[in-house]
Amino acid sequence: MGGDAAPGIVIKGADMARIRHPLARFIFVGDQVQIEPHLHKFSELRAVAEILHTVEVIKADTKPSVALRTGRRSSMGLAIDAVREGRAAGVVSAGNTGALMALGMLFLRMIPGIDRPAIASFFPTLRGESVMLDLGANIECSADNLVQFALMGEVFARTVLGLLQPTIGILNVGEEDMKGHDAVRDAAGVLRQTKLPIHFEGFVEGDDITAGTVDVVVTDGFTGNVALKTAEGTARLYSEFLRRAFKSSLFAKLGYLLARHALGKLRARLDPRRYNGAMLLGLNGVVVKSHGGTDALGYANAIGVAIDMAAQGFAEKIRQEIEVFVAERQAPEKAVI
Amino acid sequence: MGGDAAPGIVIKGADMARIRHPLARFIFVGDQVQIEPHLHKFSELRAVAEILHTVEVIKADTKPSVALRTGRRSSMGLAIDAVREGRAAGVVSAGNTGALMALGMLFLRMIPGIDRPAIASFFPTLRGESVMLDLGANIECSADNLVQFALMGEVFARTVLGLLQPTIGILNVGEEDMKGHDAVRDAAGVLRQTKLPIHFEGFVEGDDITAGTVDVVVTDGFTGNVALKTAEGTARLYSEFLRRAFKSSLFAKLGYLLARHALGKLRARLDPRRYNGAMLLGLNGVVVKSHGGTDALGYANAIGVAIDMAAQGFAEKIRQEIEVFVAERQAPEKAVI
Repeated sequence: MGGDAAPGIVIKGADMARIRHPLARFIFVGDQVQIEPHLHKFSELRAVAEILHTVEVIKADTKPSVALRTGRRSSMGLAIDAVREGRAAGVVSAGNTGALMALGMLFLRMIPGIDRPAIASFFPTLRGESVMLDLGANIECSADNLVQFALMGEVFARTVLGLLQPTIGILNVGEEDMKGHDAVRDAAGVLRQTKLPIHFEGFVEGDDITAGTVDVVVTDGFTGNVALKTAEGTARLYSEFLRRAFKSSLFAKLGYLLARHALGKLRARLDPRRYNGAMLLGLNGVVVKSHGGTDALGYANAIGVAIDMAAQGFAEKIRQEIEVFVAERQAPEKAVI
Repeated sequence: MGGDAAPGIVIKGADMARIRHPLARFIFVGDQVQIEPHLHKFSELRAVAEILHTVEVIKADTKPSVALRTGRRSSMGLAIDAVREGRAAGVVSAGNTGALMALGMLFLRMIPGIDRPAIASFFPTLRGESVMLDLGANIECSADNLVQFALMGEVFARTVLGLLQPTIGILNVGEEDMKGHDAVRDAAGVLRQTKLPIHFEGFVEGDDITAGTVDVVVTDGFTGNVALKTAEGTARLYSEFLRRAFKSSLFAKLGYLLARHALGKLRARLDPRRYNGAMLLGLNGVVVKSHGGTDALGYANAIGVAIDMAAQGFAEKIRQEIEVFVAERQAPEKAVI
């Protein structure tokens, strides 16, 4: 029931996801009266779907604390509870992010060793695709938070992006060791010393995000959210200036017509819908947040992310990695003689 | 002597600036043996230039604390001192930013009421040009710092960008009042209540930077530095993908040839050299930092920024505005009955 055009685009998106993932089955949680007419249009989807009825919804402006008190029987609450009970392999929502995180923590609990969930997403770079986290779940982060994000991002890059030896960098204002504030410096210190088989490359800067200098960019939720939206805004600026350039003369218009096919591929590559589906990492279960303003194609992509994470046993892999890390940190220091 | 190709591009850039600003005069501070052969090539520049000789330089990796102890007679130190003594109206450097800030504070002192200098720069938006600060001078910022940055940015937008009623926004992860950390919320509270004739629009997000939602974007130096470099990196990604698209087929290549003139104008508009020249605001004097890797055109633009600021009496205008603000805050609270 969340997002700007639910439940219509959710069901249309689910039908696209069904075609891509023929083994997937769907539970639509929300108001049966609103869902049924849309579902009626997709007979093949209907055959692999059920409706879990509730008229309670969490609104876009509901505070997380209120969602926790009153939202357990809402469509979002029931959907997450279905993951907890194992009736669903994962949940996708285009609704209120804060509420999704709060209810996710309530029903699914954190993976032991992870203090806070992080929002992660992948994005295009000059060298392929990278993942960045946190994108807004945690406004202020300790060094421990950042270290945990690094480990979760590394598992994500291996399991969902399929990279064998993903590299990790911490976002900072310079590459030198002394740059930045205590949290980034302390986190870098821990990651440099860990004996886990991870590839920590040190600090990276804002322009390294799209350069693809590392596969996993680790940052606090404030900086990550600003960086993500700045990148989106810059792409929009560039795209708008390009549109104006192609309209500025007859030659340019003709040029556009000739290059249209190639430019269409460029547009598809940078299409925000392609990168829709932010993951809430650190919970005992798969929780994916779709952009509220996306369309059916974007929603289908978010569902695809959830299916990938569930199929790869993502939460379990993070749990194993964190266990090793926690054990390592708790082990007594070896004396150096 | 600072930057990747000094003193050659500095002198070539100064000659470009001389043509644009016929009344400008130049002092080149550094090693006469290196400067003289370059200056020799530009006879008209030579007629309005002098050399202030020193062989001492501050290196790119010199720490600010070391620069303070040992850099007073360096080219950077002597150049800033010339501003303090009134022999120069402003200083432009492509050297070490931390050292420039430290020596600037030492020689020029802060404007009363301003605790820390901020690095500001302007950039293209969908609606024209905006200014953002701080871009990296202060890794951690208090609410007071942010308020001071807002006031300085407002004066800058009026005097250098020529806007009559510039609007101000604080960068945050959402527009709602309760979003973000204490520093941004407290700063917003102060700016909402001030009786100064400023136009504070509240919080803005990363994509508002290039949308041009406000004329002045206020943020801490960590976030601002990451946002600036993320925008630069995204523009580079887009530009590279565009280049590949135009090379991907014969039609696309022909299309490029036809649209080349219009695309050239787009490139010029987004040319980083056009936005070269970051201002160190808050000092009793004009200090402009050029990108170390820029060319002569970029350096000429940085000189142009310094000339604009000096000609507009920028430091004096900030001093006046801050005086009013400080007086307002020190006035006893009116009782509300």
